[in-house]
Amino acid sequence: MEYCFGIDVGGTTVKCGLFRTDGTLEEKWEIPTRTENHGEAILPDIAASILEKMKERGITREMTAGVGVDVPGPVNENGEVPCAVNLHWGYKHIAREMEALTGLKAKAANDANAAALGESWRGGAAGIPNVLMATLGTGVGGGIIVDGRIVCGAHGSGGEIGHANVEPEETEYCNCGNQGCLEQMTSATGIVRLAKKELKSSDDSSVLRQSQVTAKAVFDAYKQGDELAGRVVKKFASYLGRGLAIFACVTDPEVILIGGGVSKVRCEQCI
Amino acid sequence: MEYCFGIDVGGTTVKCGLFRTDGTLEEKWEIPTRTENHGEAILPDIAASILEKMKERGITREMTAGVGVDVPGPVNENGEVPCAVNLHWGYKHIAREMEALTGLKAKAANDANAAALGESWRGGAAGIPNVLMATLGTGVGGGIIVDGRIVCGAHGSGGEIGHANVEPEETEYCNCGNQGCLEQMTSATGIVRLAKKELKSSDDSSVLRQSQVTAKAVFDAYKQGDELAGRVVKKFASYLGRGLAIFACVTDPEVILIGGGVSKVRCEQCI
Repeated sequence: MEYCFGIDVGGTTVKCGLFRTDGTLEEKWEIPTRTENHGEAILPDIAASILEKMKERGITREMTAGVGVDVPGPVNENGEVPCAVNLHWGYKHIAREMEALTGLKAKAANDANAAALGESWRGGAAGIPNVLMATLGTGVGGGIIVDGRIVCGAHGSGGEIGHANVEPEETEYCNCGNQGCLEQMTSATGIVRLAKKELKSSDDSSVLRQSQVTAKAVFDAYKQGDELAGRVVKKFASYLGRGLAIFACVTDPEVILIGGGVSKVRCEQCI
Repeated sequence: MEYCFGIDVGGTTVKCGLFRTDGTLEEKWEIPTRTENHGEAILPDIAASILEKMKERGITREMTAGVGVDVPGPVNENGEVPCAVNLHWGYKHIAREMEALTGLKAKAANDANAAALGESWRGGAAGIPNVLMATLGTGVGGGIIVDGRIVCGAHGSGGEIGHANVEPEETEYCNCGNQGCLEQMTSATGIVRLAKKELKSSDDSSVLRQSQVTAKAVFDAYKQGDELAGRVVKKFASYLGRGLAIFACVTDPEVILIGGGVSKVRCEQCI
């Protein structure tokens, strides 16, 4: 039982990792996510890639503890998803299918939940039993750890903080069908949305008027002292901060972690 | 092991219950909460009352599974409080002190957490492992149950949803020192506060202008068709509904329970 596989299934690529069971990464690679025909090839593709890697490396099933798969969607404790929109999946028992396809023990989790578990095992919250993690990427996800265990919830949607309402006055709709979700304000796409609204509602000059508006462009402009970008960053930070403070009232975490692409922004003025 | 004691410590009275271990209430009584001298008499008073009841009934320690004590304040998994303002307590190891005083096994919990546990054992959420309970009384508390276990959190403040910010524009301060807390909008005192603001900001006639404003008076006036009271109830309901929806995104409960004095309001128009 020296090895295990960690698989992160995204909407366009599947990130695969071969690890030692102590968490050391041996090798990582990617395969495309084939979402056609209701994503029916996704798990077989992953299984084939794992079995190929085992063959290539001379790793037997006996040497392998198992496979962990995370997906963008709600996953319950048994490893079942009711649906995963970005993968074009309806109901799927991920853990059981992976076990049948590979002959290895398999577990499945929501991607942000897996991120939180990883951080609490070897990352920014190592050894801390009560953690709240927010992942700010194309969307906003989250993972809640209570007493060292991930909160899956009654429907596999534990930690889906991206769809908490933080703006009751919002008139535009979130992908989820509601209005005013944290994801509409603090995801990479949400930041672009806030910036475009700000550009439309004001005549102030801004470097953001001269190029494509991306989340990175907004933060870069802010760092250069662009006032309009500053207002956007302030809104983003205010929504995020208030949201996290509210969530903290629910589970009383010791640590709040912020991950995902947007978290790579570092402001020299702040650190 | 036929019997156990359940003790609810409030700011003015301690509610005591003698139960069978299957949850059947045998007898209940009250004793005053003596908060003078940093509340040093509270636990000894309770212990004396329990021992007297055991003597009166001929119940031995061998026949008693233990004592459960709940208090208005944060309590960690070991049964310790850092402080409980309404009891005038600083740090106290409730469980250990009660064990020393009674010779019985003791556990302690936050009052709203105990309410949630009770409801999930024998009440409105019996047999349901993922529950969110809000208690709307003089203040607002809450209890979060995940996979059948109460969420104490890193500082014993799990489920303290009363102090989640639901109104960023609020200028008045909550007892906790923050502004815009759910407790300021949806507790009995919060409803009175909302009503007084509404009465002040409008010249509309209202039966609320003719008597003392209480939470009950607001709901009674609403039921009689009083428009100003209706606006207050709508605000209350909007804050509560949005708050609960946000909290539900965190732990994904199967059931949301509403308890406490304010929950006794029933509107014939709604049911």
